[in-house]
Amino acid sequence: MRALAPGSTIGILGGGQLGRMLALAAAELGLRCHIYSDDPQSPAAEVCAAFTCADFSNTDTLSEFAMSVDVVTTEFENVPASTAETLSRLVAVYPDAASLAMAQDRLAEKDFVTGLGLATARYAAVNGPDDIAAALAVTGLPAILKTRRLGYDGKGQIRVWSAEEGRTACATLGNGELILEERLSFFREVSALVARSADGPIVAYDVPWNIHKNGVLARSIVPSGLTDAMSAEAVAAATKIAQALDYVGVLAVEFFVQPDGRLLVNELAPRVHNSGHWTQDACRVSQFAQHIRAVAGWPLVAPQRHADVVMDNLVGDDVARWPTLSSEPGAALHLYGKREPRPGRKMGHVNRLYALGGRPGDDEVSALPG
Amino acid sequence: MRALAPGSTIGILGGGQLGRMLALAAAELGLRCHIYSDDPQSPAAEVCAAFTCADFSNTDTLSEFAMSVDVVTTEFENVPASTAETLSRLVAVYPDAASLAMAQDRLAEKDFVTGLGLATARYAAVNGPDDIAAALAVTGLPAILKTRRLGYDGKGQIRVWSAEEGRTACATLGNGELILEERLSFFREVSALVARSADGPIVAYDVPWNIHKNGVLARSIVPSGLTDAMSAEAVAAATKIAQALDYVGVLAVEFFVQPDGRLLVNELAPRVHNSGHWTQDACRVSQFAQHIRAVAGWPLVAPQRHADVVMDNLVGDDVARWPTLSSEPGAALHLYGKREPRPGRKMGHVNRLYALGGRPGDDEVSALPG
Repeated sequence: MRALAPGSTIGILGGGQLGRMLALAAAELGLRCHIYSDDPQSPAAEVCAAFTCADFSNTDTLSEFAMSVDVVTTEFENVPASTAETLSRLVAVYPDAASLAMAQDRLAEKDFVTGLGLATARYAAVNGPDDIAAALAVTGLPAILKTRRLGYDGKGQIRVWSAEEGRTACATLGNGELILEERLSFFREVSALVARSADGPIVAYDVPWNIHKNGVLARSIVPSGLTDAMSAEAVAAATKIAQALDYVGVLAVEFFVQPDGRLLVNELAPRVHNSGHWTQDACRVSQFAQHIRAVAGWPLVAPQRHADVVMDNLVGDDVARWPTLSSEPGAALHLYGKREPRPGRKMGHVNRLYALGGRPGDDEVSALPG
Repeated sequence: MRALAPGSTIGILGGGQLGRMLALAAAELGLRCHIYSDDPQSPAAEVCAAFTCADFSNTDTLSEFAMSVDVVTTEFENVPASTAETLSRLVAVYPDAASLAMAQDRLAEKDFVTGLGLATARYAAVNGPDDIAAALAVTGLPAILKTRRLGYDGKGQIRVWSAEEGRTACATLGNGELILEERLSFFREVSALVARSADGPIVAYDVPWNIHKNGVLARSIVPSGLTDAMSAEAVAAATKIAQALDYVGVLAVEFFVQPDGRLLVNELAPRVHNSGHWTQDACRVSQFAQHIRAVAGWPLVAPQRHADVVMDNLVGDDVARWPTLSSEPGAALHLYGKREPRPGRKMGHVNRLYALGGRPGDDEVSALPG
């Protein structure tokens, strides 16, 4: 893949905070960004060279967009297949349509991952209430029933403690295209963040430990506290997935860490990821700059972490604490320019830096107020 | 001064690379930027929420601009006095019109600095060829004749080796509003970069050693190699100037270091400064973020340098080396999105990072290829 010269234009599907931070990283490298989003209030629209506000099904605007850019990438995985196809006929799309399609479907994703010999929680397809009993025989109880598509941040998921609850949940979720997963009784969540270029080389960030609240990422902590061997296993798994997909860009792979130390792949995000926001302040090259480099065909660079770090999301009214956060020594505040702090809405994040080896202990860190 | 809430708009006069990097820093904090520039090809226009392309003397567009923003700052010191006045009637302008006016006039600047008890090279006003002899009696030979206004990057300056050359140079430079300065035979150049908020607190970056080529900054090196006492003296001088001006924002003060260790103030830049670009990668808070914080009334934060660093400007065709530079380990490349690499034009810069205490020695560093 030939590197795009400075002044080239990166097209980005989606205009949220991830698109905004990608656009800022691209600008540092002298690259222009063209944002395509259906939201006129897109946070990314305020930092880009061009903005198209249109529906993802509008083939006219998609074609114009494709013709105006040198490459297309995305900030979200739920790009409609037809959108990716329309664009792919006219311009390179990274990650490609197949990677996006796979990551949109929890069942396809799990089948793909297990097909590579990687472990996941036990799971089974559910296409209606009659499948519940057989699925529970695979997963055991308790289990968790999820929509195969369009679930995120804990939405589209119901916990199930009996076969009857399973059938009710099945109806609640629309009775089709579901997946039942083993509900793990104890786990720590971590993620691997790797970047792969079209030419093959892969770079990996250190593995963060991720803490969720109400199904939404609340905090990422680096280093994670995993052993070196477990961290290496997580990175190796993500690398295997990226290679199998002939993937281009940053790929995030979430894992459940079992009490016995086993790593189970939870899900993939074919994009920059919330659990990588700490790279902005603790590494020489952020996940955003690395993703832009990958999709622009620029060489990837070693991330070189120079600090321990705890990243906290600012969700909803958390953002009202900006006056305090902006004056806290060692805390780097990032705000997304969203006007309304609705409940559950990601408004920004703060990276608290510590000397290498100096982050608070596991007990302290998980007990910190947000 | 009350802090501007996230979502507020910073107006920036000028749309060059400094405005661009200010806008990127503001965006990270959830602040919008409105760029005002007379250049339709402004590099900053591609990363801002709003862009007004109009003349700096157009009071209509200036008034509209002032009404659309919450504060105004500038990326260059040569803002016409009438522009600053028009804006100041409608909105806060930081740094203020008086600071800008003083920094536009080499004579007023030197009078101000010496009035604070700080040393400069010997100088005298020249308003025509008849003043040359008396001025040379102050400066000695060789000397350097400069226009009082609008000189930058070595433009508007002529070296003078005799009274007759002085009179000829005087005619070349237009015979009025000139300043004759002592031509120092040997010096090292350094700069102090301080930021001051309206409430008074000042933070200082480490002092860089600056190497010029053809009158244009080519390289900044941190740490500078000055003794701690000399560095402290440079910072104290810049602090004194900032306080005397009731200054708000980042202020750069350039010094000549004499062989006997004396520091002579060369000139002031009432803005972010090329010799501070290394702060983007070697500090927790860059000069751009710090300036935005100051003008937005946000608390300033300790810069906390975490690496030694050598910054090289990419001037004109230097930028053609981007493929090599983008893959160099430990080198952070910054490009400004300018389309044409004209000779002498600043196209980008590269920050090469070293472990703290680990930068190349003085002889090595000054001999490095650009």
